[in-house]
Amino acid sequence: MIKTIQFKNKAVRIIDQTKLPQKLVYKDCRLLRTLWLAIRRLEVRGAPALGAAAAFGVLMGTQDFKGEDRELFISSLNKVCDYLATSRPTAVNLFHSLEAMRMVPWLYPSASVTKLKDVIRKKAFEIYETDRAVCRAMGDHGARLIRNGDRLMTICNAGALATVDYGTALGVFYSAQKADKRFEVFACETRPLLQGARLTAWELTHARIATTLITDNMASVVMRDKGIRAVFTGADRIAANGDAANKIGTYGLAVLAKHHRIPFYVVAPRTTFDLAILKGNDIPIEERDPQEVRQLAGRPIAPKTVSVFNPAFDVTPHDLITAFVTERGIIKKPFNKTIKKIFS
Amino acid sequence: MIKTIQFKNKAVRIIDQTKLPQKLVYKDCRLLRTLWLAIRRLEVRGAPALGAAAAFGVLMGTQDFKGEDRELFISSLNKVCDYLATSRPTAVNLFHSLEAMRMVPWLYPSASVTKLKDVIRKKAFEIYETDRAVCRAMGDHGARLIRNGDRLMTICNAGALATVDYGTALGVFYSAQKADKRFEVFACETRPLLQGARLTAWELTHARIATTLITDNMASVVMRDKGIRAVFTGADRIAANGDAANKIGTYGLAVLAKHHRIPFYVVAPRTTFDLAILKGNDIPIEERDPQEVRQLAGRPIAPKTVSVFNPAFDVTPHDLITAFVTERGIIKKPFNKTIKKIFS
Repeated sequence: MIKTIQFKNKAVRIIDQTKLPQKLVYKDCRLLRTLWLAIRRLEVRGAPALGAAAAFGVLMGTQDFKGEDRELFISSLNKVCDYLATSRPTAVNLFHSLEAMRMVPWLYPSASVTKLKDVIRKKAFEIYETDRAVCRAMGDHGARLIRNGDRLMTICNAGALATVDYGTALGVFYSAQKADKRFEVFACETRPLLQGARLTAWELTHARIATTLITDNMASVVMRDKGIRAVFTGADRIAANGDAANKIGTYGLAVLAKHHRIPFYVVAPRTTFDLAILKGNDIPIEERDPQEVRQLAGRPIAPKTVSVFNPAFDVTPHDLITAFVTERGIIKKPFNKTIKKIFS
Repeated sequence: MIKTIQFKNKAVRIIDQTKLPQKLVYKDCRLLRTLWLAIRRLEVRGAPALGAAAAFGVLMGTQDFKGEDRELFISSLNKVCDYLATSRPTAVNLFHSLEAMRMVPWLYPSASVTKLKDVIRKKAFEIYETDRAVCRAMGDHGARLIRNGDRLMTICNAGALATVDYGTALGVFYSAQKADKRFEVFACETRPLLQGARLTAWELTHARIATTLITDNMASVVMRDKGIRAVFTGADRIAANGDAANKIGTYGLAVLAKHHRIPFYVVAPRTTFDLAILKGNDIPIEERDPQEVRQLAGRPIAPKTVSVFNPAFDVTPHDLITAFVTERGIIKKPFNKTIKKIFS
């Protein structure tokens, strides 16, 4: 398995995903600013991966704190968290990690700075290891939904590259493969940044899973004419009622799946749920640079002056989602009741 | 207005649309092979434009015929038509033009070669002039469907660049603009070849129509959150029952429009209808080179070995179409009856 994120020699080591599929480049982020930019520029992306990146970022940003002044340390910790929180707004896993780190001094009210630093280190690796275990659990639960001969569809990259390793939606495929099921995957290329073409197509062919790449506007005809049996996607933030923010285009896929009576599954760990948000309308949606749409790999593909709308995510309303696949199993409707249960 | 196709100095002069929006390049096709390649490579494209290009192609391919042997001339005419017919399979306008040309000797059974050449010349310019008039008529009929303040959506390029000039779906916008209506257009970029980003965004901003470019997978969220009031598209071939082949992604847009209760209009001249084909399943759909999906402007954006599905068109079933806008007016359901009427 690819190691998407590691903590090595006091640096956060990531795969620079903007270089894929041409080159597999590891990049050591030794400064918080480097990590922040890597997140902003999508060198590292995917909600669970951002959770681990934020945790390691806090570890990196606090480990070199000198002295034993608890108040100063807490202030420094909060500054690091505040800064990383400004990198990207939608994926809640990032905020959950930062929140867990901010809590450390409150959980250990009389601990020394040395002890706090130690707890932060342990916590960061715990988030990292939990992600690995949780992905495998989700994959194994989700694999039960796949039958021999199925044709499946996915969007963006909810794979090993979106997590510490293994993946969410693609983790389901890896588990199905381990269980010796035969199936094919249609991967939507996912404009504007082509995570489907660059990352998912790369990951799945690398794992020897039969994969066909399509442009996003082919999804409808592929559903109808190729007999797609299920759609699996990841999520960046899920509201208490089950409305799910994910990569732009996910909502459209869900509408198309409903029209073609195809089950639509969202695969996400509990850390992607945000029970403080009651419904999808309240999830903040990142709008990105219009140049991502007007250009491709630095080359203009549209008039320079044309207006652009470039939301990075959309919200799929819960009624279009057949079930959630979580580390606690497959969560069915009514979501406003069943989602609460996985937190009890 | 841009002149997409002309016949000048014994050559078919086209705009090389693969160079847009960076450069406006006119290209004189002096050989049939050059024109054939220009059609295949989409330097000239759009169903009505292909009708005019084929007519001028036959004119070019027959005008230099030497001698007065009628049988030899007819054989040469048919060879030219057979060759042009192999350029692209889906747009029926191309075949209608070739059919009209093949008919010439049968309509003038005792005419000399000189006379036949003269009729072919007149016929070619008649197809050209008819397209201009028909586009304006369609535009004026369709403009009645647009209200002040509307937000509209379109896919691919069904504009001046897809016809001799003026356009089909975009002709509706031009006529609405002439009628002083205020409206905005969201243009889907239309992967893989980006006719929406390269051609429609260029044409509409050029015509000072308020235009916002989006990637294809944003259409659903734009319909829902920006209050799209109608979708207008062109067509490449329409079956007798109203099933319509058009650029890949059109079917998906129609499904999304239905889900959001948005009217879905197909704007096409009578030459785009093919009454010999009873339903959409029987329309031949061109599959194009996988490299169009794996690469963008020669740059790889996906693993070299990944499988690709690359249909150039899809078929929208008639029940998802609200009405057709033709030069004979707006055609409503039941299409199996109303379509016949425009040919009587």
